[in-house]
Amino acid sequence: MALMAVNRIVRTWDSMADRHPAGRFVDACLRGASQVMLQNNPLTGLLILAAIAWGSIRTGTPAVLVGVLVALVVGTLTALLLRVDASSWRQGLFGFSPLLTGAALPTFLAVRPLLWVYVVVGAAVTTVVTLALSNVLGTWGVAALTFPFVLTSWFLLMGAYQFARIRISTLSHPALPAPPESAHVPLTVEYLATGMAKGVAQVFLIDDWISGAVILVALAVNSRVVALAAILGTVVGTLVAVGLGVPGDPVGKGIWGFNAVLTAVALGAVLYRPSAAVTAYALLGTLTTVGVQAALTTALTPLGVPTLTAPFVVATWLFLLPKRDFAPIPHHERVEEATAVTTARPKH
Amino acid sequence: MALMAVNRIVRTWDSMADRHPAGRFVDACLRGASQVMLQNNPLTGLLILAAIAWGSIRTGTPAVLVGVLVALVVGTLTALLLRVDASSWRQGLFGFSPLLTGAALPTFLAVRPLLWVYVVVGAAVTTVVTLALSNVLGTWGVAALTFPFVLTSWFLLMGAYQFARIRISTLSHPALPAPPESAHVPLTVEYLATGMAKGVAQVFLIDDWISGAVILVALAVNSRVVALAAILGTVVGTLVAVGLGVPGDPVGKGIWGFNAVLTAVALGAVLYRPSAAVTAYALLGTLTTVGVQAALTTALTPLGVPTLTAPFVVATWLFLLPKRDFAPIPHHERVEEATAVTTARPKH
Amino acid sequence: MALMAVNRIVRTWDSMADRHPAGRFVDACLRGASQVMLQNNPLTGLLILAAIAWGSIRTGTPAVLVGVLVALVVGTLTALLLRVDASSWRQGLFGFSPLLTGAALPTFLAVRPLLWVYVVVGAAVTTVVTLALSNVLGTWGVAALTFPFVLTSWFLLMGAYQFARIRISTLSHPALPAPPESAHVPLTVEYLATGMAKGVAQVFLIDDWISGAVILVALAVNSRVVALAAILGTVVGTLVAVGLGVPGDPVGKGIWGFNAVLTAVALGAVLYRPSAAVTAYALLGTLTTVGVQAALTTALTPLGVPTLTAPFVVATWLFLLPKRDFAPIPHHERVEEATAVTTARPKH
Repeated sequence: MALMAVNRIVRTWDSMADRHPAGRFVDACLRGASQVMLQNNPLTGLLILAAIAWGSIRTGTPAVLVGVLVALVVGTLTALLLRVDASSWRQGLFGFSPLLTGAALPTFLAVRPLLWVYVVVGAAVTTVVTLALSNVLGTWGVAALTFPFVLTSWFLLMGAYQFARIRISTLSHPALPAPPESAHVPLTVEYLATGMAKGVAQVFLIDDWISGAVILVALAVNSRVVALAAILGTVVGTLVAVGLGVPGDPVGKGIWGFNAVLTAVALGAVLYRPSAAVTAYALLGTLTTVGVQAALTTALTPLGVPTLTAPFVVATWLFLLPKRDFAPIPHHERVEEATAVTTARPKH
Repeated sequence: MALMAVNRIVRTWDSMADRHPAGRFVDACLRGASQVMLQNNPLTGLLILAAIAWGSIRTGTPAVLVGVLVALVVGTLTALLLRVDASSWRQGLFGFSPLLTGAALPTFLAVRPLLWVYVVVGAAVTTVVTLALSNVLGTWGVAALTFPFVLTSWFLLMGAYQFARIRISTLSHPALPAPPESAHVPLTVEYLATGMAKGVAQVFLIDDWISGAVILVALAVNSRVVALAAILGTVVGTLVAVGLGVPGDPVGKGIWGFNAVLTAVALGAVLYRPSAAVTAYALLGTLTTVGVQAALTTALTPLGVPTLTAPFVVATWLFLLPKRDFAPIPHHERVEEATAVTTARPKH
Repeated sequence: MALMAVNRIVRTWDSMADRHPAGRFVDACLRGASQVMLQNNPLTGLLILAAIAWGSIRTGTPAVLVGVLVALVVGTLTALLLRVDASSWRQGLFGFSPLLTGAALPTFLAVRPLLWVYVVVGAAVTTVVTLALSNVLGTWGVAALTFPFVLTSWFLLMGAYQFARIRISTLSHPALPAPPESAHVPLTVEYLATGMAKGVAQVFLIDDWISGAVILVALAVNSRVVALAAILGTVVGTLVAVGLGVPGDPVGKGIWGFNAVLTAVALGAVLYRPSAAVTAYALLGTLTTVGVQAALTTALTPLGVPTLTAPFVVATWLFLLPKRDFAPIPHHERVEEATAVTTARPKH
């Protein structure tokens, strides 16, 4: 019943969005918000924006919400000006990376007038970078994922260390990496569960477990398999990190969940057809995400910038590029499969 | 009248260069000097070499001139030995990156006998790297630009920290990045204008405003649009950096101008057909260059090496790879354009 | 006579390996051990494993032998599960990178129960990364070489700095790079010769000169040209590093030999047809390897991880990508050659 109501709302919206240019623009923006999670659904996007609104206000950082909305609009508009492929544009594929740039800058930098210039220019550049990376990665048939956001935001955050008028607020001070103290932090079930829920919200740089729960609902509206993958992602990512002995504080903030959420959704529920083999493969990809996140955390410690979603991107690329086919192969496809395998053959 | 005289000189030289192998070699070297600025004109190259000679002697670093000449000859010769494409060779496309390697090494390392081994081997390797990167980047139809110089020189400069017999002279000591003091440096019009003129010369690692002026003349000899783009580049790059609050000393040395000069020339005057849309796009690319330069400055601070022209290369690649077509599209080209856009379509 | 006996053993083994699945698996693993040195010979692989066994026991690090064997089996098995190209699999092309991951982790990390989880997961991931990088690099017709090992091990070693339960043992403490003291270390012929022999063994992270000698025999069993190239590689690499003034201690451990060994074998004896021109080109490639190793040592100093075989990989890629043809060109091939050169033409 609820599902039918949802479907009716979506259909009504779709037909409205088709008729008005402004409706199409809003629709592309909403879908852009859902594309961060690799979904293409305006209602999912609306609920995600609601979760961001709630979380950014609740944690006392309303500038994050403003940054998200400004960057989503600017990025989507820039794509329009650059006359990108219309179908990709309508699916929100030029909105999700700018949105994240708009979330990251007010999270890590002090909110001053010049920050908003940074956000607007950063969102426009994120769209250019999306086109550039999509062209490069298209060679191997893989998507740029959120890497346009990561690259642009790394540039803007690392750049901030040279500019007296852009002030760093919550970035960690550049330092040499050092192993964590072995001091044990008591991890209760409640603490872990809160951290896991926050892990879903941290995809959008939101440190709030209710936002995480709303985002899970937003995903379930579009696909229950995706919502399930997100849950498994944050649980596995958090538990593996705890098992390897990471400090307790980031665990409680969901820091070890969000990249794993994205990898689990991408590999386990969206980019491969779900099956037992795919689940095993996605699990190995999720473990790899935790390892890459730890490695990039070390690598970026001297530069004073966070990994953002780079661990998800790197791990997912590494697990997409082998071009494995996990579905049973019908007879008439075998020739093509053989060719694909040949392409991936290592040589000396 | 002056232009006609110039044209006559160039034509006489061309016909002479065609007849003698030695003339062809000198011609390729002169064009190589002009190709640093993406020009293909032996007179421009000659004037640029004159600007380097003046600047390197005036700033008390004649080894830079020697390095430039040695590396230009060695790099061009190495390309000949490796039997590269003859037409590219004659256009100087195998001279410009070695030339810059030859300028960078004596600028940052102490002048000792072993340095010259470093310069000769470095110039030869720069040519190999030019071939390697051109092959890779040809996949997407973009040029390696000055990245063969950047990569080889980074290797040689970072390598110097391991070698007792190669002494570092002017490289910044490796350190952790730290935000600049907000202390305000008084920036007079004269100070800024001198910095902007030096910005043109700093493309060749020359800290002298007269050299910058001569290089602008060298560009104007070949194309006034290019000279104008270079001026706009150094003005925009310097002003944006000052507006964001960089320290005053590098501004006065033209450090915030040279990458912006190259991006403005590449995007605004050479690689796209100049138009209003292209100017806007090149302006965004020039802003991006300043951001990338700040980011790479932070990233390289712990390693004690400078960005060289990497900010220009990265920003220009990011703005070339989207493969946008800014000219009005004639009817019969629309199909092809649609295909090009489809290629650059991001996917999930 | 000895050669004929060796040939008979290899033929007997081959026919046995053909008949039994278990034999095929062991054969693929043995060939995998030989593929680290770009060879495809089970006897070479067996002798290399014997050299690793001797060296790891003699230097008091038997965990390295265990790691090598476990990772070789796990990596080869993972490839089987992922249904890779059968012919590549049988040649050992999915064994050599995991083998090195299995050698590196117990070398640099403390031997504890959790380390073995790290080794098993690391070996499986190395195979996935092998497929991913082979797909990417296949675009330009070059092999991934040992880079899947380098990338995976860098991730696992850098990651260890975040995990309290994975303990670092012999990694250098993260630090800012600093030039070496000019203090002269007396380098005797014996000291240098031992270091050069160890250089061959250090390909497998073994610090023992007898292991190095056994590996040279293992190579000679398959190809005397390859064994000669390996000797020249470690001699040139070590002497060039000493000539540039590196500290004496790493020289004595063979640290400046192993990357040069691999480049000399790859460029001088395996991937190009040996000739005078190829020898000169491979020599320049070997010099470049020393430079890249110094540069990466500097770049990785703040992150506290070693270069592993990245200098070999980077230098060899740079010298393979130009796609030069050093053999005299028969008339009927000229057209194709011209096309190949055109592809590598740099553009502006």
